[in-house]
Amino acid sequence: MTRLSHIAAGVALLAATTLSGIARADNQDVIDYRQHIMKTLGEQSQSLAMVMQGKAPAENVAMHAQILAVTAATVEAAFKEKVAGGESKPDVWAKWDDFSKRAKELSANMADLAKTAQAGGVDAVKPKLQAALTCRGCHETYREQKK
Amino acid sequence: MTRLSHIAAGVALLAATTLSGIARADNQDVIDYRQHIMKTLGEQSQSLAMVMQGKAPAENVAMHAQILAVTAATVEAAFKEKVAGGESKPDVWAKWDDFSKRAKELSANMADLAKTAQAGGVDAVKPKLQAALTCRGCHETYREQKK
Repeated sequence: MTRLSHIAAGVALLAATTLSGIARADNQDVIDYRQHIMKTLGEQSQSLAMVMQGKAPAENVAMHAQILAVTAATVEAAFKEKVAGGESKPDVWAKWDDFSKRAKELSANMADLAKTAQAGGVDAVKPKLQAALTCRGCHETYREQKK
Repeated sequence: MTRLSHIAAGVALLAATTLSGIARADNQDVIDYRQHIMKTLGEQSQSLAMVMQGKAPAENVAMHAQILAVTAATVEAAFKEKVAGGESKPDVWAKWDDFSKRAKELSANMADLAKTAQAGGVDAVKPKLQAALTCRGCHETYREQKK
């Protein structure tokens, strides 16, 4: 699936560079794009976790935190359009004010964490990490539980 | 799998913040970490492809290119330690000079693309994209082909 979608992306890139750029996001595009964003957050939070555990290079802490920050800043907009599907529960839009507030909080937390990582490295990040990474609480409310 | 590993990362984070940070990367850690890096590149190149096709917001082009740049800069180091497994072919290390050269090229390409995206947006990125994203050539040589 990952392999296939990667090849598909390659083909898509080819199309993007040869066609005149007339395109429009359909519902599946909206779902795909927000999933790329969330998967990036997942890969990067797992990378950051490895750094914090001493299982990956400490000097990468600021890089991972920075990626989390710039990616988290796009979450709210990525979910704004009401398109059911993927792993999103309908409550994302039914309770948009709360979802939006949480997305903004995550973004602010990650921006702060990125600054902290840049300034003080692993030791400075450590006491802030648990409170900053609010993935779980939000997923429990807004993400479909897969079997 | 993704869900499980995400939960595992959460548990790991908890451990990282409560233990004294005495840890060491074992072989599986090395594999896991480089896979997080490569998956981030995959998610972000697919995101960038969607932007180029007009299926995702054009204003995100510089963000995706920047993430690709900072992530690609870590690829060479992530594979440097000779740990077979994951999807890596043994040639990664048997032909390290070539692998290393390609990793540096990707990093340089992505750094250039990020500058281009920042300065000129989608239209400026378009003519450079195919040549810059060298994923496929390197994967064909150094990545196990899954069935």
